Amino acid sequence: MPRPMRLPALDPETVAELRTSGYPEPLRSRLGDRAKRKLGDACGLTRFGVNLVTLAPGGQSALRHWHTLEDEFVYVLSGEVALVTNEGEQLLTAGMCAGYPAGSKNAHHFINRGTAPCRYLEIGDRTPGDNAFYPDDDLLWVEDENGVHSAHKDGSRY
Amino acid sequence: MPRPMRLPALDPETVAELRTSGYPEPLRSRLGDRAKRKLGDACGLTRFGVNLVTLAPGGQSALRHWHTLEDEFVYVLSGEVALVTNEGEQLLTAGMCAGYPAGSKNAHHFINRGTAPCRYLEIGDRTPGDNAFYPDDDLLWVEDENGVHSAHKDGSRY
Repeated sequence: MPRPMRLPALDPETVAELRTSGYPEPLRSRLGDRAKRKLGDACGLTRFGVNLVTLAPGGQSALRHWHTLEDEFVYVLSGEVALVTNEGEQLLTAGMCAGYPAGSKNAHHFINRGTAPCRYLEIGDRTPGDNAFYPDDDLLWVEDENGVHSAHKDGSRY
Repeated sequence: MPRPMRLPALDPETVAELRTSGYPEPLRSRLGDRAKRKLGDACGLTRFGVNLVTLAPGGQSALRHWHTLEDEFVYVLSGEVALVTNEGEQLLTAGMCAGYPAGSKNAHHFINRGTAPCRYLEIGDRTPGDNAFYPDDDLLWVEDENGVHSAHKDGSRY
C-alpha cells in the first residue's frame, strides 16, 4: 500500500472535484461534464493555478476565448481531445500540450468529441486586471464597483 | 500516423532536450543526468515556465532549495522519484504532485533513487527579484551591476 502523501506532496485523488462555472446559463450548460481538482490551491500556491481536469465525452474546457494578461498552458494526461482555435481543429492525444500566450487573439478551447474521458492539466497565472474575450458567444465580463459580472455583448446583464 | 502538431499545440518530443545548469562545479555534477524540454518557452509563454524533465537514475532536479518569490509545482508523469524536504523523504509515483509556495522555507528537491528514468512536469512563475537559498550547500546567488553570479556563502566567487 502506498503511504498517504504529506504536503508539499499531494495525491490529486484526495482533492475535491468541482463542477462549477462562472458562466451564466444557457452558456454554462454547454460545458457538459467538466470536473476540476484545484491542485495548486491545495498546495497553497497563489501566483498561478494548476487544475487537474476530467472532461467527459461531449464536455468542453471553456467557451472558446483568449486572455488579455494571462498565459495558459495545458498538458494532456490521458484520452484525447480536440483543440479548437481560429485556424480550426487538431486532435491532442496523451503527452501532447498547448500554450496560449497572454494577449494572443487566437481564441481556443478543448472539446471532447470522443467516447472516453480525457484528463489534462491546465495552468494559468493570476496577473491582476486580466480579461477574457469570446469571439463565438454573446458574453462579456464587466467590472463595476461591486466586482466583475457577466453581460451580453451590448453590456446588458444576463 | 498522427499529424504534426501546430502551435498553439506542441508535441514535446519536437522540443530540444537541454542538459544545462547555472550551478558552479563541483555542485553542477551532483545533478547527474537531468534533461529538460522547455515547453512553455516553446509555446511563447513568458509569465511562467513549464519544463518536461527526464531524470535518469541518480539524477537530481536541483540542489535542495526554496524560493523567496517564486511558486513552484511538479507533477510526476512516469517512473518514481524521492521528494526530499526539511521533514525527510517521501516517494512520489506517477500521478502524484507537489507544490512549493513562494517564501515557504521548506527546502525541497527530487532525487531519482530508482533504476528507471522518471519524467515530470515542473512549473514556476517568473516574479522579478526572486532568490533561492540552499540550506545543505555552500551556494548563494549575488546580484551586482553586471547581473547575478554564484558565490560561496562567505560571498566569495566560485
